[in-house]
Amino acid sequence: MSISPPTLNRLCLYLRSLKCLQEDGISTISSREWADRFDLSAAQIRKDLAHFGGFGVRGVGYEVEELILKLTSILRLDRQYRVVVVGMGNLGRAFARHRGFSRGSFLVVAGVDEDPAKVGQKIGGVEVRHARELEQVVRENQVDMGVLTVPAEAAQETYERLVEAGVKGVLNFAPVRIRSVPEVPLKDVDLRIYLEELAYYLPFDEAPS
Amino acid sequence: MSISPPTLNRLCLYLRSLKCLQEDGISTISSREWADRFDLSAAQIRKDLAHFGGFGVRGVGYEVEELILKLTSILRLDRQYRVVVVGMGNLGRAFARHRGFSRGSFLVVAGVDEDPAKVGQKIGGVEVRHARELEQVVRENQVDMGVLTVPAEAAQETYERLVEAGVKGVLNFAPVRIRSVPEVPLKDVDLRIYLEELAYYLPFDEAPS
Repeated sequence: MSISPPTLNRLCLYLRSLKCLQEDGISTISSREWADRFDLSAAQIRKDLAHFGGFGVRGVGYEVEELILKLTSILRLDRQYRVVVVGMGNLGRAFARHRGFSRGSFLVVAGVDEDPAKVGQKIGGVEVRHARELEQVVRENQVDMGVLTVPAEAAQETYERLVEAGVKGVLNFAPVRIRSVPEVPLKDVDLRIYLEELAYYLPFDEAPS
Repeated sequence: MSISPPTLNRLCLYLRSLKCLQEDGISTISSREWADRFDLSAAQIRKDLAHFGGFGVRGVGYEVEELILKLTSILRLDRQYRVVVVGMGNLGRAFARHRGFSRGSFLVVAGVDEDPAKVGQKIGGVEVRHARELEQVVRENQVDMGVLTVPAEAAQETYERLVEAGVKGVLNFAPVRIRSVPEVPLKDVDLRIYLEELAYYLPFDEAPS
């Protein structure tokens, strides 16, 4: 069964919010209360989860722990994905140090940069290797995913080298569109969307100028 | 008219994809072709846009430039939001240098850090001020939004200081839940969601282990 990108996004958010509920010691919750707490839609939650087999119990709600396990499995997060970060500038270093990027389903196994001054450094426990060794780094470490934090002009070539080396997917933070092949899914990230989504809800008295 | 968060997210993605079409010199496009190019849903595009007045012309499609202007206005991106980045670690510095963060609707006007070694530096054209001057920085620069890239343990206090100082919204990258007040909307960002969304589509032959 294939999941569409918007549904996938919602399921990821459900999983995240369920983990918050678990941290708060909540073991069962109704779709209504769950939706209210996290700004979700109760009807959408019920519809999405019914589609995967309906895990709720009428009058009781959803079992938080059970649903976490189910969603983890549905989202294929019950394995570990090995990640290489290509480009150890500020963003690359932030990811190498990000605890969420080396926990649970993901493990940053190496960083790569073409700056000799960075090569050999350990950043957040991640060793930086030279960019010319990218293919070798991917093979030695059985890398599943590449994270591109290179300058825009280097993104296309880096994607192609990652594909050649055998990675299975690429996350691109470079502000450029990459021509990708269907066998190696590419996901573009533009961090501005968060500013845009927040901007809409800012309380301004006057009409926008 | 208030827009729900999921609709807002879709409208932001529509705007982004329209700008790509504009760069490619495309002046009109059908919902079908638009959806195919950017992995969107044509039916959803038509439904969403019909809701705001229906900008398409039957048999012709949507006028790209006109729709960009309309969406920019609907999304309240036809003004400039002034941003302060709090915490000039790797992620904060990446934002200060990010060209998309100081273009169009957004302008990073200052960075703040408590490390005296960083104070006074210019990073991506953005001056770093001392954290104890946060309130003053917000007022002097008429800051609209704060971006929190501080450690988790400093996030709550920093949010509260930003609220006191008069910012209108806060984007939080710290991996912690902040108790917020309704008057100053808070948006949490967890960058792992991109890894999770990509992981699902990776081509693995065998069942996950």
